[in-house]
Amino acid sequence: MTFPYLDTQDLDFMLADWLDWRALAELPAFADHDEGTFREVIALSEALALDRFAPHNRLSDQNEPRLENGRVVLLPEIEQALDAFREAGLVASDFSADHGGAGLPTMVTSGVAACLTAANVATNAYVFLARANARLIVTHGTQAQIDQWAMPQLHGRHYGTMCLSEPQAGSSLADIRTRALPDGEDALGPRYRLRGNKMWISGGEHDMGDNIVHLVLAKIAQDDGSLPPGTKGISLFAVPRILPDGTRNDIALAGLNHKLGYRGTVNTLLNFGEGEGALGWRIGGAGQGLAIMFQMMNEARVGVGLGAAALACRGYVQSLAYARERPQGRPLGVKDPTSPPVALIDHPDVRRMLIVQKVLAEGALALCLYGARLIDLEAAAPEAGARADAGRLLGLLTPVIKTFPSEMGPRANDLAIQIHGGYGYTRDYDVEQVWRDNRLNPIHEGTTGIQALDLLGRKILGDDGSALAALEGEIRATVARARAHATDARARENDRLTAPAQALDEALTGVLDCVARLRAMPDPRLALQHATPFLMAFGHLVVGWIWLDKALAALAATGRNPDYIEGKLLACRYFMEWELPRIHPDLARIAAGDDLLASIPEGGF
Amino acid sequence: MTFPYLDTQDLDFMLADWLDWRALAELPAFADHDEGTFREVIALSEALALDRFAPHNRLSDQNEPRLENGRVVLLPEIEQALDAFREAGLVASDFSADHGGAGLPTMVTSGVAACLTAANVATNAYVFLARANARLIVTHGTQAQIDQWAMPQLHGRHYGTMCLSEPQAGSSLADIRTRALPDGEDALGPRYRLRGNKMWISGGEHDMGDNIVHLVLAKIAQDDGSLPPGTKGISLFAVPRILPDGTRNDIALAGLNHKLGYRGTVNTLLNFGEGEGALGWRIGGAGQGLAIMFQMMNEARVGVGLGAAALACRGYVQSLAYARERPQGRPLGVKDPTSPPVALIDHPDVRRMLIVQKVLAEGALALCLYGARLIDLEAAAPEAGARADAGRLLGLLTPVIKTFPSEMGPRANDLAIQIHGGYGYTRDYDVEQVWRDNRLNPIHEGTTGIQALDLLGRKILGDDGSALAALEGEIRATVARARAHATDARARENDRLTAPAQALDEALTGVLDCVARLRAMPDPRLALQHATPFLMAFGHLVVGWIWLDKALAALAATGRNPDYIEGKLLACRYFMEWELPRIHPDLARIAAGDDLLASIPEGGF
Repeated sequence: MTFPYLDTQDLDFMLADWLDWRALAELPAFADHDEGTFREVIALSEALALDRFAPHNRLSDQNEPRLENGRVVLLPEIEQALDAFREAGLVASDFSADHGGAGLPTMVTSGVAACLTAANVATNAYVFLARANARLIVTHGTQAQIDQWAMPQLHGRHYGTMCLSEPQAGSSLADIRTRALPDGEDALGPRYRLRGNKMWISGGEHDMGDNIVHLVLAKIAQDDGSLPPGTKGISLFAVPRILPDGTRNDIALAGLNHKLGYRGTVNTLLNFGEGEGALGWRIGGAGQGLAIMFQMMNEARVGVGLGAAALACRGYVQSLAYARERPQGRPLGVKDPTSPPVALIDHPDVRRMLIVQKVLAEGALALCLYGARLIDLEAAAPEAGARADAGRLLGLLTPVIKTFPSEMGPRANDLAIQIHGGYGYTRDYDVEQVWRDNRLNPIHEGTTGIQALDLLGRKILGDDGSALAALEGEIRATVARARAHATDARARENDRLTAPAQALDEALTGVLDCVARLRAMPDPRLALQHATPFLMAFGHLVVGWIWLDKALAALAATGRNPDYIEGKLLACRYFMEWELPRIHPDLARIAAGDDLLASIPEGGF
Repeated sequence: MTFPYLDTQDLDFMLADWLDWRALAELPAFADHDEGTFREVIALSEALALDRFAPHNRLSDQNEPRLENGRVVLLPEIEQALDAFREAGLVASDFSADHGGAGLPTMVTSGVAACLTAANVATNAYVFLARANARLIVTHGTQAQIDQWAMPQLHGRHYGTMCLSEPQAGSSLADIRTRALPDGEDALGPRYRLRGNKMWISGGEHDMGDNIVHLVLAKIAQDDGSLPPGTKGISLFAVPRILPDGTRNDIALAGLNHKLGYRGTVNTLLNFGEGEGALGWRIGGAGQGLAIMFQMMNEARVGVGLGAAALACRGYVQSLAYARERPQGRPLGVKDPTSPPVALIDHPDVRRMLIVQKVLAEGALALCLYGARLIDLEAAAPEAGARADAGRLLGLLTPVIKTFPSEMGPRANDLAIQIHGGYGYTRDYDVEQVWRDNRLNPIHEGTTGIQALDLLGRKILGDDGSALAALEGEIRATVARARAHATDARARENDRLTAPAQALDEALTGVLDCVARLRAMPDPRLALQHATPFLMAFGHLVVGWIWLDKALAALAATGRNPDYIEGKLLACRYFMEWELPRIHPDLARIAAGDDLLASIPEGGF
C-alpha cells in the first residue's frame, strides 16, 4: 500500500538522489550505516506512522486533552503510539551510542519525523520535545544531569518540555518574571527554588511515562531581591515534575489552553512555586540560559518547519487522491452534456491548485531536509572549515526553514480544502484539520515576525556578510550547473533549465540589491520595518534555488519513473514562472524604505 | 459604546460621503426616504447586532445544530434573534410596500446586513436565505405563489432555502438527477412530484417559523422517462416543507453536515420523494429553472461577498483593539530593557498586519456596497440607459464581488490571528472562529474557480466588450479626477494622489493588455486555464480603483476626523504600493498562454 500522507517516492528521491545519503554514510561519524540501513529506518517509520500514529489523528482532534480531578486525561492511543515509537528504537536514533543511540544522521531522522508528523503532528510533538530536551541536556548538562534527566528521555521513560513564555511576556523574553532563589548545591548541581507562571507549555502535564523534565527559563534574583533587566540575566533550569526523592515538585497545573488545532498535544499554563518554591537545577552557567536554550529553540524551529512541510505534503497527496477519484463536470470547451464527466484533475484550475501545493509542499520539505543535512555536516564534516561553513549557512537559513513552510504550508492546505469543495469544509475529510493544525506553525517557537527580525536584523544586517555570501555562492553554483546542462541539452532541443536559471538569477540579484539598499539606510528602523515581507521574498529565493537544484538531480537520476522526473521539471518551471517573480514588486517596496507604516496616525486605523 | 465588530464610522463615510445616499434618496423610487431615515436604520441594525446577534456567536459555534429524535435542534438564541429582526421591521425593508416593505435602497440594507453578519454570520444566513427566496418568488412567481410562499417569508413567519447541489454533481448542475413528474395543476400552478437528493442545503430543516419553502432545481422527465441532458432541461419548483393542507411534504432529512465553521447555520442533506414523491409547484416556465435561479444565485453571490467582507472587518477591528491594549516588547532600536514595553501597535510588523487587513477588509466592504448601489440603480434609475449601464457593470462585477472578499477575507483574518499570537490560536478569542467561518465563502454559491470562468469566459471573452469598456470608463474617470486633484494639490506641496493614480493606470493597462492577448488566442482552453489568477488580478484592479475613488471622497469629506481621513489616504497608498503591483507578474504569465498545466503527466503530480 502506498503511504497516504506523503509521497515517499519523493522523500526517497530527495534523500538518496538529491541530498546523496550515500555521501553522508561515507563520513566517519556515520560509518556504521549505509543506504540500506537508512532506507530500512524510513520504511520502519512509515509503518509506524500508518499503524500507530495515523489511526488516532482525527480522534485526538475530537477528544482534546481534558482535566479530570486535577489530572490531564489524554487519549490512550497517544501513549500507545509513543510506546511503539520507543520499542522501534527510534527515540535516540540520531544520538551517539554513549547515549543509547544508533548515530543516524539528522537527515535520516528528519525523514522519520516527516512521516510521523504527516500522520499525526500532535502525537509526534511529545517525541519531538523529549528528543530536543534530552539533546540540550546532553550538550550542556553535567554527567549527573545527563544520567538523571537526559538518559531516561532517550530511553522513552521521561518526557520533556520547554518553558519560556509567560502570560505577560509572550515573545518578549526580556520581560519574564519567573525568579530563581539559590537553594544550595547537590550532586545534580546548583539548586534553586523557582517561582513564576509559564504559558503555552506543550506537554506540560500528563501521566505518560515516569516523569516530565521541564527546562525553564528564569532570572536569578539579585541581592536586593530584584530581577536583572533584559535577557542577559536569564538562566536555565531543569525542573522535574517528580523530584529525585520521588515526591511531586511544587508545580501546579493552572489550566489547559483550548486550541484551534494541534489538539492532541496538551498545552498548559503552569505555576511554578505556589508553595515552597519549585526545585530546579541550573543547566550551564548563570546568565547563560538564553544562549543555551537557543540550541533547543533552533532545533524546535527546524522541527516546526519540518512539521509544517509534512502537513503541507499531507494536504497535497490527499487532495491529489480526491482529484483523481472524483468525477465532476466536463473539460473546458466540451459543450456536449451527454459526454461523461471527467475527474477533477482534468480541470486546469484543479491542476493549478495541485501544482501550487506541490511546489510549496515539496519545496518546503526539501528545504527542511537540506537544513538537516547542514546539521549533519556542521557536526560531522571532517574538516573544521566545512563544519563552520555548514554552521554559517544553517544559522542564516534557520528562520527561513522555520517560516517558509509555516506560512506556505497553510496556504497549500487552503487549496487542499478548495479542491474538496463543500466536502473539504466538513469534518468528514481530513483537510480541514490539517489546515487548522498547520495554523499553529507561524506562531509557536518564535512568530513569523520574530523570525524575520532574526533573519534580516541578526543574520544579514548584523552579520559581516559572510553568511549571505556563502548562500550566494551556493546559488550561483547551481545556476552555473543549470546553464551548463542547458547548453548541452540545447543541442538536443531539450533545454529545460535556461529559463528557470535565469529567473533564479534575477531573484538573487533582486534580493542582493535590496540588501545593499537596506545596509545603506541610516535609520535601522526603516531598514527593519519590512523584515517580514523580506523574509518571505528571501524564502522564495531559497526555495527557488532548491527547486532548480532538485531539477538538476532529477535530470541526473537513474531508475526513476520518467513521468515523475517530468513532474519535477515542470514543478521547477512553475515555481520560477509563477511564484518567484512575485517577490520583485515587494523587494522594490522594501528597498524604498519609506515611512508609511510609522506615519499612520493613531486614529488612522 | 463603539460597535465592536465593524468600523461604523467607515460604514457611514462610505454610504454618506462616498456613495452619496442623499443622491439615492432623490430618485423617485426612494423618495419616501432621506439621509435621516437611512441612518436610523443602520443604527437600529447596530443595536440589534449587538444585543441579539453577537451574544450567541460563539455559543452557536460550540453547540452546533444536532439531531434529536429526528428533529433538528438549534440554539434557542437563533430564533430569538430572528424574531427580534422581524419585530424591528427589517425582513422586507427593501421590498416594495405591496410586499410589506419600506422600499429602502439595497445599499442601505447592505449596511444592515454588514452589521448583522459581522456580529453573527451564521444566524444572519437564515434571514438572508428567506429574503432572497422571497425576492425570487416575488419576481418570477404568480400572485398566488407570492401570497402563498413569498409573503409569509417577508412577514418573518416562513423560512426559505435554495436546493441546487446534489451529492454526485457538486458545481456541475447539468448533472443533477432530481426528477419532476407532472401531477396536474391547481391554484398554485403546475404541480409535480419530485424525487432526488439535495446536498449542502443551508437551513434545510428546523422547527423555526411555520414553514420552510425550498426552491428546488429539478429536471422534468421526458416522455420516455429519461431526464433531458444539460442545464437547459432544468426547471424550478417551490417545494414547501408543510403542504397547503397542513400535512408534511415528502421530504426526509437524510443527515446534517458537520462543518469547519459557520456552524450555527444548519446544513442538511435532503431526500425529496422517498415515498409518494414530494409535491412541488413550478415557478416560471419549464426549462427556465436555471435562468430564474440565477437571480437568487446572483443575490447570494453578492451576499456571500458582503458576509466575507464583514468578517474581514470583524477580524480587523478586533485585532486592532488587541494591538492597542496589549503591551509587548520594545520598539526597534531601543536596547534598554528597563524601558517600559510598548503596545503591539507600536511595532512596524503589527502595523503592517493591521494595514493589510484594513485595505483588504475595507476595500472588500466598499466593493460590496458599490455593487449594492448598482443594484439600486439597475432597478430605480429614471433613465433606461442608466439602468442598463448599471446592470451591465453589476454583471461584470458580480464574480469579483463574490470572490475578492471571499479570498482576501480569510487572508485578512489570518493576520488577525497572527496579531493575537498564541492567544489567537485559542478558542478564548474570536479571531479563530472568524477565520473558520470565513473559509466557507470561497466554496459556497459557486467556488472561486466557477466565478473565475464566469468572469473571464462569460463576462469578458464571451461579451461584446461593452461591460469591460464600461468599467474601463469608470476607472479612467477616477484616474482623471485624481490627477486633476493632484495638480491642484501640487501647488500646495500636498499631492497625495499622483502616485496612486499612476499605479492604478498601470494596473488597468496591464489587465486590458492581458485581455487583448487572451482574446487573440485561438484555443479557448489556453485562454481560460488561468481564469482564477486572472480573477484575482482583476479583483485587485477593481479594489484599487475603489480605494482611489474613496481617497478622493475622503479629501472632499467635511466633518470627519482628520486622522481618519489621513488613514484613508495612507491605506489607498499602501494598497497601490504593495498589493496592486503584485498582479503584474501574474498577468504576464496569464497572457503567455503556455500549456504547462495541461502538460503535466498523470504520474507527474
